[in-house]
Amino acid sequence: MAELLKGKEVASAINERSRNDVALLKEKGITPALAILRVGERSEDLSYERGATKRCNETGVEVVNVVLPLDVSKETFYAKLEELNNDPNIHGILMLRPLPQHLDNELARMSIVPEKDVDGCTDGSLTGVFTNTAKGFAPCTAQAAIEILDHYGIELTGKNVVVLGRSLVVGKPVSMLLLNRNATVTVCHSKSKNIADICKKADILVVCTGKMESVNKDYVNENQIIIDVGISFNEIKNKLCGDVLFEEVEPVVKMITPVPGGVGAVTTSVLVSHVVEAAKRTINS
Amino acid sequence: MAELLKGKEVASAINERSRNDVALLKEKGITPALAILRVGERSEDLSYERGATKRCNETGVEVVNVVLPLDVSKETFYAKLEELNNDPNIHGILMLRPLPQHLDNELARMSIVPEKDVDGCTDGSLTGVFTNTAKGFAPCTAQAAIEILDHYGIELTGKNVVVLGRSLVVGKPVSMLLLNRNATVTVCHSKSKNIADICKKADILVVCTGKMESVNKDYVNENQIIIDVGISFNEIKNKLCGDVLFEEVEPVVKMITPVPGGVGAVTTSVLVSHVVEAAKRTINS
Repeated sequence: MAELLKGKEVASAINERSRNDVALLKEKGITPALAILRVGERSEDLSYERGATKRCNETGVEVVNVVLPLDVSKETFYAKLEELNNDPNIHGILMLRPLPQHLDNELARMSIVPEKDVDGCTDGSLTGVFTNTAKGFAPCTAQAAIEILDHYGIELTGKNVVVLGRSLVVGKPVSMLLLNRNATVTVCHSKSKNIADICKKADILVVCTGKMESVNKDYVNENQIIIDVGISFNEIKNKLCGDVLFEEVEPVVKMITPVPGGVGAVTTSVLVSHVVEAAKRTINS
Repeated sequence: MAELLKGKEVASAINERSRNDVALLKEKGITPALAILRVGERSEDLSYERGATKRCNETGVEVVNVVLPLDVSKETFYAKLEELNNDPNIHGILMLRPLPQHLDNELARMSIVPEKDVDGCTDGSLTGVFTNTAKGFAPCTAQAAIEILDHYGIELTGKNVVVLGRSLVVGKPVSMLLLNRNATVTVCHSKSKNIADICKKADILVVCTGKMESVNKDYVNENQIIIDVGISFNEIKNKLCGDVLFEEVEPVVKMITPVPGGVGAVTTSVLVSHVVEAAKRTINS
């Protein structure tokens, strides 16, 4: 019976810190503000926007909604993005993606200034993660994994951590964040051999393969801490599942994040904390 | 008795490829050119400049020497750098560092455009390595390690590779290059525990700790391939040594790079190949 590393209380603790920081910033005349840039009315975008807005409201961060029609011209879209980049009252920009193809997702991603890239999607942010400098922000999901480990007092220095997955959104950045925190990091992926054996020897296993319930009891040991980043809808079970086969792994390991209610419950809190941090950096710069 | 992975023949093969590419570029009216920017007359700088110049001469790459006095003003230095950035006839810039302090090493590093950063020192180049895109160039030493493995036909896909060291110049970029080549990569460092045990299980061990002769026979096994990136002068032995205790490790392992004559013998060839690649990219862009 593993201890559940629930995201909710991690999120609460992050929100509490953000709230305090916002209060201090407001005393200095600064209201941290997040611009949410949405094109069209995709239901996933609306859902994420609602979640982020709720977190902002809870912490005193202002939300500026910028909604453009699905057929917005490239010129109008990029003019708007440039305006947000230059607006001193906007501290973070969340661009809901994917954008419609005519807007060029890659160009749009690169067009956000790293200082406001609270979602950690630009090359500038990835560089900050790679070089361990305060440039841009780490991708929220990758950082959420670290926040959970920190919140539950799990020491990282010298620990053998295996990261399953090497995507630019989670696997690679979380590996760098762990390395920057003095963990010994092994990155496994689809081309790795003897993956179960490698995973089984880890102190901490971070699973971000995107393959639903693919990590079973052969991958784990009884002293292990499992961070499950995956989230997929299992049509047979009719519920959300992670990349870990929970019912098989949970009875074996020491600690594990549930899905839902684990990493995913922390990401919007991380996003909002980045807006607050971006606002703080404007004072120090 | 290990097979020696000598750098010299790797360098020759790279130079041969560069020579052919230069010939093709010249047919199109393009002569690849490297600007070597030096401030003052430090002996290390002069030595590296001689090595790079020799390689350029061998392959038909033009060298433009830009030498500024030690007391050059910041304005003059950055104006010169900007001129090189903008000069369409210059394809690569090698800035010999460290610069005198008044010029701000960090700012100077950031001021080279990634397209001409053939030494792989800018954030843009590191981002390219991290995201596995053709942006800038990998740091030459990190890439030299890969070139040696490739030249000797050592398969990387699915291999367990341990990288000892996590510097931005070698450890981190070589880890990313290996990961991009489908190796399973473990990064160890000064805070890792049981390092010898971890290293001993690797198929390939890349040593870049900068600690002379610190890797002994306890770290290796008889099927192992060792890439020794270190180079230090051993005052007691009165010769150059690597990070590996060669006389103890070489009799045990399968293959090993000598020091000197291993990785170090390949780096300037990589540098020159980057100049050629930079010139090729100007055609395609």
